[in-house]
Amino acid sequence: MIIQLEKNIKPTQLQKVQEKLQQINYKTNEVKTQYAHYIIGVGKQEFDIRGIGTLPGIRDIHRVSDAYKLVSRKWKVEDTRIDLGDGVKIGTGNFEIMAGPCSIESEAQIESTVAHLVENGIRIMRGGVYKPRSSPYSFRGLGVDGLKIFYEKCKAAGIKIITEVMMVSQIETMLPYVDIFQVGARNSQNFNLLDALGEVDKPVMLKRGISGTIDELLQAAEYIFSNGNERIMLCERGIRSYEKAYRNTLDINAIPILKEKTHLPVIVDPSHGVGVRKHVEAVALAGVIAGADAVIAEVHECPEKAFSDGQQTLSYAEGKGLYNKLRKTFALRESF
Amino acid sequence: MIIQLEKNIKPTQLQKVQEKLQQINYKTNEVKTQYAHYIIGVGKQEFDIRGIGTLPGIRDIHRVSDAYKLVSRKWKVEDTRIDLGDGVKIGTGNFEIMAGPCSIESEAQIESTVAHLVENGIRIMRGGVYKPRSSPYSFRGLGVDGLKIFYEKCKAAGIKIITEVMMVSQIETMLPYVDIFQVGARNSQNFNLLDALGEVDKPVMLKRGISGTIDELLQAAEYIFSNGNERIMLCERGIRSYEKAYRNTLDINAIPILKEKTHLPVIVDPSHGVGVRKHVEAVALAGVIAGADAVIAEVHECPEKAFSDGQQTLSYAEGKGLYNKLRKTFALRESF
Amino acid sequence: MIIQLEKNIKPTQLQKVQEKLQQINYKTNEVKTQYAHYIIGVGKQEFDIRGIGTLPGIRDIHRVSDAYKLVSRKWKVEDTRIDLGDGVKIGTGNFEIMAGPCSIESEAQIESTVAHLVENGIRIMRGGVYKPRSSPYSFRGLGVDGLKIFYEKCKAAGIKIITEVMMVSQIETMLPYVDIFQVGARNSQNFNLLDALGEVDKPVMLKRGISGTIDELLQAAEYIFSNGNERIMLCERGIRSYEKAYRNTLDINAIPILKEKTHLPVIVDPSHGVGVRKHVEAVALAGVIAGADAVIAEVHECPEKAFSDGQQTLSYAEGKGLYNKLRKTFALRESF
Amino acid sequence: MIIQLEKNIKPTQLQKVQEKLQQINYKTNEVKTQYAHYIIGVGKQEFDIRGIGTLPGIRDIHRVSDAYKLVSRKWKVEDTRIDLGDGVKIGTGNFEIMAGPCSIESEAQIESTVAHLVENGIRIMRGGVYKPRSSPYSFRGLGVDGLKIFYEKCKAAGIKIITEVMMVSQIETMLPYVDIFQVGARNSQNFNLLDALGEVDKPVMLKRGISGTIDELLQAAEYIFSNGNERIMLCERGIRSYEKAYRNTLDINAIPILKEKTHLPVIVDPSHGVGVRKHVEAVALAGVIAGADAVIAEVHECPEKAFSDGQQTLSYAEGKGLYNKLRKTFALRESF
Repeated sequence: MIIQLEKNIKPTQLQKVQEKLQQINYKTNEVKTQYAHYIIGVGKQEFDIRGIGTLPGIRDIHRVSDAYKLVSRKWKVEDTRIDLGDGVKIGTGNFEIMAGPCSIESEAQIESTVAHLVENGIRIMRGGVYKPRSSPYSFRGLGVDGLKIFYEKCKAAGIKIITEVMMVSQIETMLPYVDIFQVGARNSQNFNLLDALGEVDKPVMLKRGISGTIDELLQAAEYIFSNGNERIMLCERGIRSYEKAYRNTLDINAIPILKEKTHLPVIVDPSHGVGVRKHVEAVALAGVIAGADAVIAEVHECPEKAFSDGQQTLSYAEGKGLYNKLRKTFALRESF
Repeated sequence: MIIQLEKNIKPTQLQKVQEKLQQINYKTNEVKTQYAHYIIGVGKQEFDIRGIGTLPGIRDIHRVSDAYKLVSRKWKVEDTRIDLGDGVKIGTGNFEIMAGPCSIESEAQIESTVAHLVENGIRIMRGGVYKPRSSPYSFRGLGVDGLKIFYEKCKAAGIKIITEVMMVSQIETMLPYVDIFQVGARNSQNFNLLDALGEVDKPVMLKRGISGTIDELLQAAEYIFSNGNERIMLCERGIRSYEKAYRNTLDINAIPILKEKTHLPVIVDPSHGVGVRKHVEAVALAGVIAGADAVIAEVHECPEKAFSDGQQTLSYAEGKGLYNKLRKTFALRESF
Repeated sequence: MIIQLEKNIKPTQLQKVQEKLQQINYKTNEVKTQYAHYIIGVGKQEFDIRGIGTLPGIRDIHRVSDAYKLVSRKWKVEDTRIDLGDGVKIGTGNFEIMAGPCSIESEAQIESTVAHLVENGIRIMRGGVYKPRSSPYSFRGLGVDGLKIFYEKCKAAGIKIITEVMMVSQIETMLPYVDIFQVGARNSQNFNLLDALGEVDKPVMLKRGISGTIDELLQAAEYIFSNGNERIMLCERGIRSYEKAYRNTLDINAIPILKEKTHLPVIVDPSHGVGVRKHVEAVALAGVIAGADAVIAEVHECPEKAFSDGQQTLSYAEGKGLYNKLRKTFALRESF
Repeated sequence: MIIQLEKNIKPTQLQKVQEKLQQINYKTNEVKTQYAHYIIGVGKQEFDIRGIGTLPGIRDIHRVSDAYKLVSRKWKVEDTRIDLGDGVKIGTGNFEIMAGPCSIESEAQIESTVAHLVENGIRIMRGGVYKPRSSPYSFRGLGVDGLKIFYEKCKAAGIKIITEVMMVSQIETMLPYVDIFQVGARNSQNFNLLDALGEVDKPVMLKRGISGTIDELLQAAEYIFSNGNERIMLCERGIRSYEKAYRNTLDINAIPILKEKTHLPVIVDPSHGVGVRKHVEAVALAGVIAGADAVIAEVHECPEKAFSDGQQTLSYAEGKGLYNKLRKTFALRESF
């Protein structure tokens, strides 16, 4: 059960609500986000919702039987739209593209990418400065120094930044330079990181785990929300299957199912999804027609020379072609 | 290696070709289809392709390193288009919808479906008369009697029939009444059935196995082709994964990969693919934008009452909406 | 619900039983096996089991809520033991090893294998004469001619034969020469083949599908049983997973779960299970300690020269070592 | 390539080694552990190993082509044995059982468990004080206060403690009270946590990811080793598959493969592995006969009342039976 409280609820009123829930043996969690104040009640007993909902200080109340609560569409029917400022919005009615390299490599690379994005009307640049790598002997990114240059160049061009955060201690350092914190597939159930991102007022894009279920993804998002941050987007990036003809199985089915189960925006990552350069376009378009609110794609001036595996990275020319098709596909979907 | 022979190759010329291949230790398979005459050579030794290709009686020769040969795009670059007659074609430049119930249940049901298809300009009806069922105690279909009624009604309305064949001994009985033989996911590696379908001059739609790899699907198609039947289409119908939020993981990635690796048409089955009625549309559209040549979907006058699990079956109204969107999506793809 | 009828039930008594079940809206299936006569009732209505069980001509009655019925331990608590004659038995209290090559290749190979088995006290020889192959261009086995030699040599040495049957039309030809019909993983849901094997009074070893669930395996066994043949054993042979460090994931968990759910014997196939020669022993021993009634393993005089992929095949010396360890492991398990 | 340096190598000698590697374009990583001093060279160029190995200050040198280096058996042929003090050792020739509850719940529960372990001659107790939970609304463990009591009780009884660490900032707090740090499946690629555990001189037990490959597990171990800590053990705890008849697919195949590829000890976790109480024993025994050096199992005075899902937890009586069988199975394996 979720109870949204009035912003100016009095302490005595709040106590009454808590007592009422204790009477029916519900464990309560108080959640304060940048937008609202909630009580999450978890329990099994049957109860009369009107007996609670009419207490003073309560704005709204719903039963939510899912394991996830605040991110469930059973709580909030309306789509969440995340405003990044300067006219960049993610969520229903909008379509955004996030493009850029896998890793930030140099100032020249950032400049070249920014120019490419500006030319194509793209408002969000992706690029990693902290890279999760399977091997400890691989390049792990330029770190905060790279991020600062990334920030300067993008700021000047009116471009927002999405980049991956890997550990709690990085959050504070990165905070001034980041528009969207990305949580990677390997950290999808790093609960301490999720908790900490819940305490920040910056949007978070949470990737599904490498073999994460849809339910686990939604519960991971609940960690962020229940710690105070409502600005979450979910990202389908391919799951691990037995098939070896491509890198990951982009799970197209997850997109309409997520749109049904949650009010949060859904992003599709075709680059990691299929992981094969010449097929990125097909699965990206599929993601959009199936309901994705944005696409995040890897582009590089010279894909063959990109750090960290360019096999899924598009050239600028390929990117240009993709963006146009994505926008037309989104327009068709909107016309339905 | 594949060698296409001249239609009027002389026995002595053929013998020369065979001898040449034996000299380089290649095992040969002679293949005669409804359209052509081939020698498939399998071996490991390096050879000079010109030394063979210039022999009299040879029309074309190519190295094909894939495990599958005749179905490989390395052999035939051009897309295969299958003509079902009366203006119904499957393959590049066309887009067809195959719709109908999971199981043929009654004459009335066939009539109702045919009327629905005619109204929506659909030329191919699906419907099972032999049903593979997990349990021996479930309904297994109306058999050939049902098929005959199915045939009469469709014939009268100019509609083609696709229906599943489950065993070799059914082929002959079904032959006069069927336009496309469907091989189900559970029979995807029933090699005797594939062999036998290779000897028939009717198109075959071969479904990917429940956890079949793309490579296995192509090798299964090679069974049919190498037994004499070139008229094959492949169907992506969802794979088995760990995710429990839907029935099968429709593998959108397989579509562009199949279009790359083979010249055969590719069909998408969203009904079994995602297996959730309200999400059939999203994944069907995704299949089309990603490159599918046709969609096969379940519709029923009253999905709740359909035999054999209506949970993935659309109503006529839902079907109508889907067909329109599918056609617009195909038109957009063609415009790219 | 399963009803076992008295062998000498009168037609009028049988009719009464059928009527009683119709009254509670149960669909009935009459099953006659080599051992008994059953009625399988499938329905949802609640009923008083005593009201039916006391009818004349009924020997036993049980509710069985599983999708599979006659193979369920809810029907038959006691383990099934299959007697192959000449003192060779599979099932509780016994432990058998089935060993031999993947494919029967020649008379000399059979003789060599038989000598190896005799030397090691092994009573069942495996070897394929019909081979399911992914590619149509691969060797498909010596067929019935090979089987006849196989039979002669084994007969003379008192060794039983297990070999794969791939299609209905092979059953009759193979029948005189086979002690156990093997159904391969790819035919695990070839329902017509299962039906036909139900009509034969020879034991059948049914392999789990490549990505078959335990439930599907048990329902496949139900096909055989409900067509008249109670002499079934189940075989765990590895499932398909994402892991690439070995060929198949031998599912050790399936063994105790099968032993819980069914009264049929369970065999483990470590050769296909892990598919890596040097690790066959470890997973074979694991299968036995976990409850398997028999092990089926590939051995060859010269594994490197074996047809059809020797990478999982043991040499005679390795086999000898394995058999001893298997027997000691079984003895330890029996002592628990 | 791995170079082990002499402990007293002179700076000028070290510089020479580094230069030599630069000449052949190898990237070098210097690794100092509690036991030794290494240079890891990563590159592709062919080189003469003698030209490097004979430099002064070098103790040993090997080519290691695996992605993981120091944990590879190509580097160290001999098994690693981890001494926990007081006669408790993990690794070849020894067999240890780690038992205890999923979560530490109370002082009384610890006392009861300790008594059970002492009675059964078990020297290592498991129990979580920080619990990774899918839902933010679930119990997350007693934290460091629980750990201190855990420590006191175990210390007094001569029992070692293994418990999970979830974030870098917990390491220092937990350090005095922990004998083995456990890294859970969800943190198996939490690279910052792995890095930090590399800087600690306490043994680490690293669990395979929920769908982690064997290769990823070994590379994760390499993170710990290359940051300075050689005392690592690996744990197979079941992978995620499509099968729904149990919780996780304990991957028995991984055990012999890990023993082949690495010199580190391998632990098996049957409780999470199969996740079904009545089948824990079968898969635990399978793990031991297949080569595991230790078993970690959940026991609880009253499994039905255990926090965090008792469905896989054994009672004390069941535990007692298991320990005896495990020891007999280990003894049999040692006799082979």
